[in-house]
Amino acid sequence: MTRSALFEEIKKKQSFLCIGLDTDIALIPKHLLQYADPVLEFNKQIIEATKDICISYKPNTAFYETEGSKGWETLKKTFEYIPENIFKIADAKRGDIGNTSQKYAEAFFKNMNCDAVTVSPYLGADSVKPFLKYAGKWTIILGLTSNEGSNDFQNKELISPARHDKEVLGSGGGEKNSGNSEGQKLYETVIQTASGWGTPENTMFVVGATHPEALTKIRNIIPDHYLLVPGVGAQGGSLTEIIHHGMNSVCGLIINSSRGIIYAGSGKDFAEKAREAALLINAEMKKALELTINN
Amino acid sequence: MTRSALFEEIKKKQSFLCIGLDTDIALIPKHLLQYADPVLEFNKQIIEATKDICISYKPNTAFYETEGSKGWETLKKTFEYIPENIFKIADAKRGDIGNTSQKYAEAFFKNMNCDAVTVSPYLGADSVKPFLKYAGKWTIILGLTSNEGSNDFQNKELISPARHDKEVLGSGGGEKNSGNSEGQKLYETVIQTASGWGTPENTMFVVGATHPEALTKIRNIIPDHYLLVPGVGAQGGSLTEIIHHGMNSVCGLIINSSRGIIYAGSGKDFAEKAREAALLINAEMKKALELTINN
Repeated sequence: MTRSALFEEIKKKQSFLCIGLDTDIALIPKHLLQYADPVLEFNKQIIEATKDICISYKPNTAFYETEGSKGWETLKKTFEYIPENIFKIADAKRGDIGNTSQKYAEAFFKNMNCDAVTVSPYLGADSVKPFLKYAGKWTIILGLTSNEGSNDFQNKELISPARHDKEVLGSGGGEKNSGNSEGQKLYETVIQTASGWGTPENTMFVVGATHPEALTKIRNIIPDHYLLVPGVGAQGGSLTEIIHHGMNSVCGLIINSSRGIIYAGSGKDFAEKAREAALLINAEMKKALELTINN
Repeated sequence: MTRSALFEEIKKKQSFLCIGLDTDIALIPKHLLQYADPVLEFNKQIIEATKDICISYKPNTAFYETEGSKGWETLKKTFEYIPENIFKIADAKRGDIGNTSQKYAEAFFKNMNCDAVTVSPYLGADSVKPFLKYAGKWTIILGLTSNEGSNDFQNKELISPARHDKEVLGSGGGEKNSGNSEGQKLYETVIQTASGWGTPENTMFVVGATHPEALTKIRNIIPDHYLLVPGVGAQGGSLTEIIHHGMNSVCGLIINSSRGIIYAGSGKDFAEKAREAALLINAEMKKALELTINN
């Protein structure tokens, strides 16, 4: 799916909602257990109930891998079931040395027919570039994640190249510190560096909804890229704040909610309840789109 | 497998070799294609030919995921085929927010019965800790990887907490830079921080063989942990250097070779050729063990 096709879909549906299919067989309604593949049946009913009001689905691979080869089959069938006009994200957080990342890219882009896969940047350029080689596909790189552990490394400050030359190489030893001595944080360096590997037409970044204050900085670095924003709902991120700080001229946001939508109900009407939960989020999205994009 | 059982195995076999089962159906000998599961047959023959001279096997999940659910089944059967006394590593480089990492841990430790899984540290503590909850299992955290891209972020210098207080918070503005102003590199911070999440009894770190110069620093931070060292062979790392800088009193090294061993031959005698390639590496390992551990 191209960037402009994605934006058209957003305008048409007045929504930039992604529904996370983190489907856990232990948490789905009990009446589904009679089906040959209860997780697939759950996903199908969620998709049927919400496909006209969201623009993306994001199955999280971990929830399928726990079921072994059967789970992998469910994942594939889930992607096959999602309509063509909807942006299909494999939330896999893969990343390895070049020849291995190439295999992961093949697994998700060629065999699963996803539109996008999430990728961890820790191994650097050659771990991400094999994903970028697939025309019409998207690589979504982890920038600043929604969890508490994002403070452990992503939020650490790096010595900037200018300071490094001055201080470590010693050429400016003894100088006064300037007022503006703050280093760039790791996640900022990751986003800045990795945005140079691809383009806004094939790369997005993950920015957790729990860090709305960081979005202004991120938008300074990458004004044009789409951001995949998890963490609204169960993880406590504020949709209003994200919209306020993160939207750009093509919306530029795909907001994910998983548990808050798919487990909104626990009875036979779980899919309807999921739709209701999605519509609540959409109401705010529609307002935001009317205020910014539509004018 | 416990740390002492692993060390016993190393002493018994006079080897600390791990064979990487990055088995690519396009690269295995053609006569195997007649089997129902050619990749499994290849792995079985490699295992039969080398199980008495290596202490670990490490299938790389990417090479199985490209084959979809069938590949996932092959991966499971490969782990089942590996003898109990051999350390089974799933090279998966997973890592996600807590509730998701828990699912990955379940997939590999409960359903696959691996001894260890490789994990990416980018998401921090809560992405790694669910793996550490499994008694008798190992979490192998990426520290400094063997690829060129390791320079993009892992080798970047962070502002140390002491400098941060002085410089960013401004309390010491105007001081001269001390001679020792070098910051800690990201990979050092990762190893130092993550070594506190577990113990040398349940945590190892990946350190690429292409960075022998970094091993002395790493051994200062974690003298006791085992290191999983890929990058010998096809990627150009030197075994001698790694042994010299990385060994500790319980050996402390698991050296991986994948392509250099499993594709040493391409005919019907591929397994024998693999054994020969493994024995070449083992000769140097035996010498190193005799010089250090056995005395």
